[in-house]
Amino acid sequence: MSEKEYGPEQRLARVRAMLDERAYDGILIRDEANLRWLTGATDVFDFTGELPHVALITREKAYLHTDSRYFNSFMEHMPKSSPWQIDMDAVPASVWAQRRAASGRCRTVAIEDSMELSFHGALLRAIDDASLAIQLPLLHADLRLMRAVKDPSELELMARAQSITDAAFEHMLEFIKPGLTEKQIRIELDSNMFSNGADGLAFASIVASGPNTANPHAIPTDRVVCKGDLVLMDYGATYRDYCSDMTRTICLGEPSDEQRAIYDLVRFAHESCASAIRAGVDGRDIYELSRRIIDEAGYGAYYAHSLGHGVGIEVHELPVFGRSSNLVEAGAVITVEPGVYLPDRGGVRLEDFGVVTQEGYRPFTASPHELQIIDC
Amino acid sequence: MSEKEYGPEQRLARVRAMLDERAYDGILIRDEANLRWLTGATDVFDFTGELPHVALITREKAYLHTDSRYFNSFMEHMPKSSPWQIDMDAVPASVWAQRRAASGRCRTVAIEDSMELSFHGALLRAIDDASLAIQLPLLHADLRLMRAVKDPSELELMARAQSITDAAFEHMLEFIKPGLTEKQIRIELDSNMFSNGADGLAFASIVASGPNTANPHAIPTDRVVCKGDLVLMDYGATYRDYCSDMTRTICLGEPSDEQRAIYDLVRFAHESCASAIRAGVDGRDIYELSRRIIDEAGYGAYYAHSLGHGVGIEVHELPVFGRSSNLVEAGAVITVEPGVYLPDRGGVRLEDFGVVTQEGYRPFTASPHELQIIDC
Repeated sequence: MSEKEYGPEQRLARVRAMLDERAYDGILIRDEANLRWLTGATDVFDFTGELPHVALITREKAYLHTDSRYFNSFMEHMPKSSPWQIDMDAVPASVWAQRRAASGRCRTVAIEDSMELSFHGALLRAIDDASLAIQLPLLHADLRLMRAVKDPSELELMARAQSITDAAFEHMLEFIKPGLTEKQIRIELDSNMFSNGADGLAFASIVASGPNTANPHAIPTDRVVCKGDLVLMDYGATYRDYCSDMTRTICLGEPSDEQRAIYDLVRFAHESCASAIRAGVDGRDIYELSRRIIDEAGYGAYYAHSLGHGVGIEVHELPVFGRSSNLVEAGAVITVEPGVYLPDRGGVRLEDFGVVTQEGYRPFTASPHELQIIDC
Repeated sequence: MSEKEYGPEQRLARVRAMLDERAYDGILIRDEANLRWLTGATDVFDFTGELPHVALITREKAYLHTDSRYFNSFMEHMPKSSPWQIDMDAVPASVWAQRRAASGRCRTVAIEDSMELSFHGALLRAIDDASLAIQLPLLHADLRLMRAVKDPSELELMARAQSITDAAFEHMLEFIKPGLTEKQIRIELDSNMFSNGADGLAFASIVASGPNTANPHAIPTDRVVCKGDLVLMDYGATYRDYCSDMTRTICLGEPSDEQRAIYDLVRFAHESCASAIRAGVDGRDIYELSRRIIDEAGYGAYYAHSLGHGVGIEVHELPVFGRSSNLVEAGAVITVEPGVYLPDRGGVRLEDFGVVTQEGYRPFTASPHELQIIDC
């Protein structure tokens, strides 16, 4: 089940079926997550937001333009017998795109909604300068919807990323003790993931303690953790460009009644939602179930985010489990992560991630749901 | 010299001078680096590319719209007596922007070139739905040009980030030995920066060895470093959202004649260019000096990237030392990083970063330029 079997050829075929359906002659791609998915090239993209590459996919061809810094990496890291042709002409990417579209006789080339106004402007100028007529309809979420349904090779990479993440949690249960700072805990957590084979971090790890756990997006501080604290860790690894994502909240010493109450509530909301997920559900219905449970327990005001999201090459993908309707298909890889955050006192979040099947929801996460208590 | 003295008030004043000059009524900001610079808020932005915030600056007011995940962080981490008003209305960001612009009677609101087509479309629809007439001219590089000139508080943060980076290099000279993999070296390097106070990494650290050093954008592999290898490390820390950036190439054991020759050439090109930099130069002229030196030594084909770039909240800012004309002003913080890369054999890059003054170029980097040789 490698990307050889479920790789760029199959993904390009899905894109070309869309081209046919929409009567597009091609699509232009700049987003690096889309390019990673369509080329199957690992260890090339650095996802810095600089967008050094652009690709044109037509009915027959797949061209990618890059610069000298990346050319050799593509040559080395593309799957064998790749259908992609890599160009390195010393012209602006917009001019390259116009030329490739023109030589492919493209009249209608779809573009990503995320295209920057400046690139769009340059592309329109290049088309105009060449006296061409090319329509540039927006793709909307088309590629993101395709990427929401993972193939077996993608599931394997994410299960592997999660095994690194679970191993780190087990290690941290031994490591965390009163007297360490949040930042020191973060360093150990990140290093452990790298030591166990992570290629990178899925995002900057969140380590929050005590009152800081009330901030869902906390950045680790120099706060020293102490007995009686909740410690929340929300983190993930990348493995061959695919992410994992998990949150556990632990307690240093025996929890107070309030800590125990919100932990049990969040766990109940998590497990109720996880049991309700299967292919064909609407993400909004599952979100509303979590909201109802937390509202009815009287903590509705302290649960302000959505329930979960898709995960893949990006840590936030489709579908979303929130206020908008989102069909959840078999093969979607999603998080379930309700939370309750009491200002100045503390918060709890419990997050697994895993794959949606016809029968239900199979988490990759193997770490326990029981509140883990550090002896101290 | 804190951000209290040189903070958001001063930066907003520079933006408002531009509003006056261009006869704009306001500007809309979504880019997180621009928002970090203009708000002075540390430990809030996560720079993931998701763009959860939007700001409108008018002649009198500065408004920022965010969501519930970030609201408390802004409240905690904005400088005291901040001129910013933080909104959290539960409406799409495009609708919020239209409403704030309308209530400020704005007719001309400049927007960033990096704005996504989808957000631009939503904004146009919101304006149209409200029967308003608002022009949306592009800002081009205006804010990036302002950010290219750093104030004393920014220089202080970057000098601090670099001191972490230099300390890591000193540590790595003790740590690196034959038998370690590139990935193991990367873990030690990153952990060391975090242990010494880094808030984050400026970018995914490059550790390359042997033939992998010939790839300027190498991603660390499981290759085991051995005697006779060059080892190239290109890395940086962030400190309160500001980056450092440095590259050193070291040798395990005595270098070969070829290794020594390219090291000396790269060092000579580096030092010649660094000596030629002062306020008012054109980045292109300095780049061309490096190219001439490397061309004349017969290695021109093996130096394919630009000479350097600005550094700040982003690791790649203006000015650029490359093929295009770029005025270099006093207060610019820039890298100087020529390199020579021999395919399949190996490469050398030597990079400092520092500030441009009226008199010259003052590197923050304190690590030596002499080839460091690991006894083995």
